[in-house]
Amino acid sequence: MDSSFAYLFQGLDESQMEKIRAIGKEVAMTQGQQIFREGQEANGVYILRQGSAELLTVIEREIELPISILRDPGDTFGTSALVPPYRYSLSARCVEEGKLFSMETKALRRLAAEDHDIGCKIMTNLAAHFLERLKETRQEVKIHFKTLLMTTRS
Amino acid sequence: MDSSFAYLFQGLDESQMEKIRAIGKEVAMTQGQQIFREGQEANGVYILRQGSAELLTVIEREIELPISILRDPGDTFGTSALVPPYRYSLSARCVEEGKLFSMETKALRRLAAEDHDIGCKIMTNLAAHFLERLKETRQEVKIHFKTLLMTTRS
Repeated sequence: MDSSFAYLFQGLDESQMEKIRAIGKEVAMTQGQQIFREGQEANGVYILRQGSAELLTVIEREIELPISILRDPGDTFGTSALVPPYRYSLSARCVEEGKLFSMETKALRRLAAEDHDIGCKIMTNLAAHFLERLKETRQEVKIHFKTLLMTTRS
Repeated sequence: MDSSFAYLFQGLDESQMEKIRAIGKEVAMTQGQQIFREGQEANGVYILRQGSAELLTVIEREIELPISILRDPGDTFGTSALVPPYRYSLSARCVEEGKLFSMETKALRRLAAEDHDIGCKIMTNLAAHFLERLKETRQEVKIHFKTLLMTTRS
């Protein structure tokens, strides 16, 4: 795991990264595999090591809206596992087979409680990450509004 | 300030709340007053005490998109001041004259650095808050997509 790419662990020192590595394991993912589903109790946080995965949400029963595609080693997902209500806010599916570094949510939260500094840094990174996603998503809402305005005007 | 309403300070004990109160001051706001603008360097975090304020974003030069209206004492805004790049992600304007509890970002960040536990709790609350807003905003994107789908189908 190249820690420099995993935003979640930015600022952790080598001994802290050692603890993170100790609670996770590498798992394989195969093309089309559902990694987790929106709304499910969130039992794992994942870091992409190889291959690619997509995050998506279901609009209506049969229509999926892609949110983002993760293809860079270090890309992290499932992080809503770390924040109340501890449920996945999106679904994740493997697009191209590869490997994930998988951490059990319980172990990660226990580690964060034991080593307060780890917990604090993770939460700071997470807040920055969610704000970034929030701004991006607001941009999308803006684009939709602009489209609507143009439709109304024409 | 009724701390029970300010999500940002959830979990802080009375002595920690004392420190928070010490770095802020009550300021008046008047109807129509621009409290801050999107993109500006974020120098303050605000808690509503009385009156109401709206958060909004500018779509095109002259069109504003309202994001939310804050009318409950304890409602907190300007929190993107606490996360890189330390700029406001929205604009805030007073709708109905009232009072704000205003905290200088620098003082709040200094306090968070001095009292690690305060910093940690604030960041945890902030991560949960941004995730909640992110989920709400994604819901809006979904609604827009549904509308588009219906338009395409009809």
